[in-house]
Amino acid sequence: MKRSASEADLSPIHSQTVMAPSADHDQGFSDAVPDAHATVVIAGAGPAGLMLAVNLVRLGISTLILDDRPDKTTTGKADGIQPKTIETLRQLRLADTLLRNGARVYDISFWDSTPSHPLSRKGRQIHYPDHLVGASDPYILLAHQGMLEDVLLDDLKERGVTVQRDSPFLSCARDRAGKLDVTYEDRAAGENRVVKADFLVGCDGARSRVREFIPDARLEGEMSNASWGVLDGVIETDFPDLWSKVAVRSHTVGSILWIPRERNMTRLYVELSATAGERVDKAKATPEYVMARAREAMHPFSLEWKSIEWFGNYVVGQRVARRFSDPEHQIFIAGDAGHCHSALAAQGANTSMHDSFNLAWKLNLVSRGLASPSLLGTYEAERRKIANDLIAFDAGHCAAFEAGEAALTRNFNDNIRFISGVGAEYADGLLTRDSAGSGSPNGLHPGALMIPSKVTRYIDANPVDIQLDIPILGQFRLYFLIPDVQAAKGFLQSVCGLLAEKSHLSTASSAARSSYQTQSRGNAASDAFLCLDRYMAVSDILTLALVSGSKRDVFELADLPAALQRSRWTVYLDDVDGCIEKWVGMSGQAATVIVRPDGYIGAVKPWDVSQGVEAGRWVDEYFAFLA
Amino acid sequence: MKRSASEADLSPIHSQTVMAPSADHDQGFSDAVPDAHATVVIAGAGPAGLMLAVNLVRLGISTLILDDRPDKTTTGKADGIQPKTIETLRQLRLADTLLRNGARVYDISFWDSTPSHPLSRKGRQIHYPDHLVGASDPYILLAHQGMLEDVLLDDLKERGVTVQRDSPFLSCARDRAGKLDVTYEDRAAGENRVVKADFLVGCDGARSRVREFIPDARLEGEMSNASWGVLDGVIETDFPDLWSKVAVRSHTVGSILWIPRERNMTRLYVELSATAGERVDKAKATPEYVMARAREAMHPFSLEWKSIEWFGNYVVGQRVARRFSDPEHQIFIAGDAGHCHSALAAQGANTSMHDSFNLAWKLNLVSRGLASPSLLGTYEAERRKIANDLIAFDAGHCAAFEAGEAALTRNFNDNIRFISGVGAEYADGLLTRDSAGSGSPNGLHPGALMIPSKVTRYIDANPVDIQLDIPILGQFRLYFLIPDVQAAKGFLQSVCGLLAEKSHLSTASSAARSSYQTQSRGNAASDAFLCLDRYMAVSDILTLALVSGSKRDVFELADLPAALQRSRWTVYLDDVDGCIEKWVGMSGQAATVIVRPDGYIGAVKPWDVSQGVEAGRWVDEYFAFLA
Repeated sequence: MKRSASEADLSPIHSQTVMAPSADHDQGFSDAVPDAHATVVIAGAGPAGLMLAVNLVRLGISTLILDDRPDKTTTGKADGIQPKTIETLRQLRLADTLLRNGARVYDISFWDSTPSHPLSRKGRQIHYPDHLVGASDPYILLAHQGMLEDVLLDDLKERGVTVQRDSPFLSCARDRAGKLDVTYEDRAAGENRVVKADFLVGCDGARSRVREFIPDARLEGEMSNASWGVLDGVIETDFPDLWSKVAVRSHTVGSILWIPRERNMTRLYVELSATAGERVDKAKATPEYVMARAREAMHPFSLEWKSIEWFGNYVVGQRVARRFSDPEHQIFIAGDAGHCHSALAAQGANTSMHDSFNLAWKLNLVSRGLASPSLLGTYEAERRKIANDLIAFDAGHCAAFEAGEAALTRNFNDNIRFISGVGAEYADGLLTRDSAGSGSPNGLHPGALMIPSKVTRYIDANPVDIQLDIPILGQFRLYFLIPDVQAAKGFLQSVCGLLAEKSHLSTASSAARSSYQTQSRGNAASDAFLCLDRYMAVSDILTLALVSGSKRDVFELADLPAALQRSRWTVYLDDVDGCIEKWVGMSGQAATVIVRPDGYIGAVKPWDVSQGVEAGRWVDEYFAFLA
Repeated sequence: MKRSASEADLSPIHSQTVMAPSADHDQGFSDAVPDAHATVVIAGAGPAGLMLAVNLVRLGISTLILDDRPDKTTTGKADGIQPKTIETLRQLRLADTLLRNGARVYDISFWDSTPSHPLSRKGRQIHYPDHLVGASDPYILLAHQGMLEDVLLDDLKERGVTVQRDSPFLSCARDRAGKLDVTYEDRAAGENRVVKADFLVGCDGARSRVREFIPDARLEGEMSNASWGVLDGVIETDFPDLWSKVAVRSHTVGSILWIPRERNMTRLYVELSATAGERVDKAKATPEYVMARAREAMHPFSLEWKSIEWFGNYVVGQRVARRFSDPEHQIFIAGDAGHCHSALAAQGANTSMHDSFNLAWKLNLVSRGLASPSLLGTYEAERRKIANDLIAFDAGHCAAFEAGEAALTRNFNDNIRFISGVGAEYADGLLTRDSAGSGSPNGLHPGALMIPSKVTRYIDANPVDIQLDIPILGQFRLYFLIPDVQAAKGFLQSVCGLLAEKSHLSTASSAARSSYQTQSRGNAASDAFLCLDRYMAVSDILTLALVSGSKRDVFELADLPAALQRSRWTVYLDDVDGCIEKWVGMSGQAATVIVRPDGYIGAVKPWDVSQGVEAGRWVDEYFAFLA
């Protein structure tokens, strides 16, 4: 995540005298009189906070979003949306505007100069090669942070929710009932206000104030001396690779990274500290200085700016918070509040949004009483693991940038799945079971994403991307992968029968139906076109789906168990690119795949068609955490 | 095009006493005092009128849109957007909302009942098979007419233009200077107003009043007795093919056509006159009667309506106006004003929009003085040919519907390219030259559309659909298809050199540059993301483009002629699906393709690389109609 000059002042957090909530018992309980109530208070309306809000509001959770800034982001800051994030935005039906207006980077080129050789192209390659990444949107989508925030803000507005601006979060205390009293400053009104809440999430950046209310949550890691200037503008140049991502290593000036942008702009990351570890005077971190460095590095190419839209600078460091939540699982941090690193690989906003995307559905299930609070413990386990992976990668990536083309190419090739977001994977845990997976080495495995595949919807012959087709509604998905539907009739009947009877799933589904009836999802008018009922036909907790190896003309929907007939919009034909083969290999007679609400694989297992009862039990055991 | 009950009363047009403009000399010239000025007045804000307006406004032509209705369409009416129209909307960057919200029909199934056999499925097939149609969006997109109109209205609004509602067109007369005085009723103000205009286009439906001002323009053709009821609603049924397009032929009730719709709706076309030619009492054309007929036809399946959104009925006939414009090429008709036919094949709104799409860029060039007025004569020649093709097809299609599954399948297979819009082709004429074409039998030929192909943009390695990549800005395109760029350097240099010198193109380009400087395109703020200058780098009349069979690493942009270097956003690599092979076959060393502003092929010709001078002359001769 890129930070503007004002945010880049990474001085130590000034210590607070406010007590952390864990110390409440010593201090006495809060007896503040609340001005308002919300299930979740979010501090910070950047990508992490807005992604969280969009998900919570859609799920019907009452949410208050605080932001200390008077207005939304209009230029600069984070700008690179990675393949996995594009997939997430598509799943949320939020990608259209960004895809239309953003620039797409498909390739990267490497240029070096040495004392004996002038600047020349050392190589040019596809950024996200299909055989390594396999993303269905294999590019970085460039759009300044304000465009991304606008999409999320518009979605909130359609659902009647706006950000409370000019309202910094101040403090948090716990009352006798275990609820939180969240205090913020309402600058417009010129007074402090208290909101009674079940949960507080700090999406308030590297200098997070919410983090101070989580015991033992300080950032750990090192700041380097390396300092970079970041400049967005329209460039006129005879440099031929202006519209590729370009990594330049100049023997006199150091490293420069070029990123093509929307509206004919280019972003330049220019190293301000030279190779020998020179420390740059802050006064030198000006657009003029950065332009001069860039011109020197790009010699003999001409380099002029027709306009400049944004300038920032930052010091590189890799740090992760020791905790992402309090022991009571009521206070969380997400995004930059939990992890800081360089901007070079365009990871910040992406990782931040995936933090909240991971947290949102869990907050929904727990706050509705549909899942045990222990579910919220998986947030830190899963996302802190990713944050640690990220800073480890970032330290190596920065070093490779310093070392030049050969090292950087190697670093890219080794980490390309991770950079794309597709390779960010969770370890075994409550939600990622049976790590043996499908037994297919390149197939699905728990903790990883669905492998993109094209299938045909049985009911209307529409070709669809299976990983995008079912809208995100906070529900799990159970895919039956069945090479021969006729042969597996008994198997399907057994599994569906078992789940309909006394099971964790059926109990939770009944509870969920009445919960969503009382407290409905936050649908927008435009959701009518998505016909969301199609995906809730059997349960609000789970969408059933069938991927059939049998052709359309050998079975009718009426041949399927009742639960799959009701799920007729998620019966797919595997007649395009071999989904079953990709997902679990072709040897078995049946397989079951549990996909979590965030699109990660929960569990996957192959079966003989005689094992319907075992398969039903296996599915239900996964859902033991449901209340 | 579907018409509601009120519009379906196709009684003969009551005769007018107002003189047609061609009779002006006998009546004296108009000396009305104008209330306003516009280059083009459009009567009627349905799909034809709005498509025309969107194009004209984008091209910077001052346009007044009149509509007699107090408000826009909110339900029902035309609902099927065909593959070619989807392509056009994509080219105009107007497809997103419709693609997101519409339903897509990929297949069609056929059901018959006979006295001896109950209703059963006789067949099910892909609606637009790739090998027959080759469309990149091979489906019908279903969205009620109001959704389509909204997209066009929103685009106009972004450019500061709204429809003048409650304002029926009344009459038109010519003044001494040859301008038109267009009179309309401003119902809100309670008075008539006069607009001084260069052109008047009647997009005012089957009972067009503008048509009366074109001499000898009456509709010709037959009305049949066949009467249909049309019903949009949400259906509950155990009929399994609810989400396919379904043609049902019942031996007791006649024909029914099912069309899946957005928001879980289904449209039913139900034949009201029985097979024996029975004439249906108008009083019987009620939703209840139509539902009863449908239930009888679908027996033994259950059929209940959960809600009804729209009902209409119409009498089938095939008629075409004798003229589409006046001899002075100032008054035109487009859409239903020029052609009436059945709604069964979802052709009306599509053909109507393509009428205006054909007309808009010609009005732009002529009104700017950049092309000879004879250019406007091609409108009638091209679009009346399509209208005649359409009613010939429609008569056969209706007959096939009556005759049952075998005849209907045959009719579909024979006409599927035409139904999709991809097969609507123009005859030889001023704009469609050298009908020998590329010599490749399945390749490009004049009067037809570009064949969809995927290529890679040289400059940023973005994969793009070549037929969509260059935005529609009223300009022609010249594609160089070059298997070996190094071998063709001299050829490219010769052609570009010739065109830059004294040529029709260079003269017109100079004139165009100053015309667009004085009277600029009607860009919206969001157009900034399209970076339109990229496509106008050489000329406002023509975008140059290169499709290279050579790989990216064997040439630099700097190796190309200056005009192609300036056109660097339209240099493509033919490394995906063989564009050059698809377009002209692989035998030649070079080929040139002229594409018109509406995406139709103007001319195509293969060359040896020694023939650069001839090729340059050939290109320039095509443009002899430029002023």
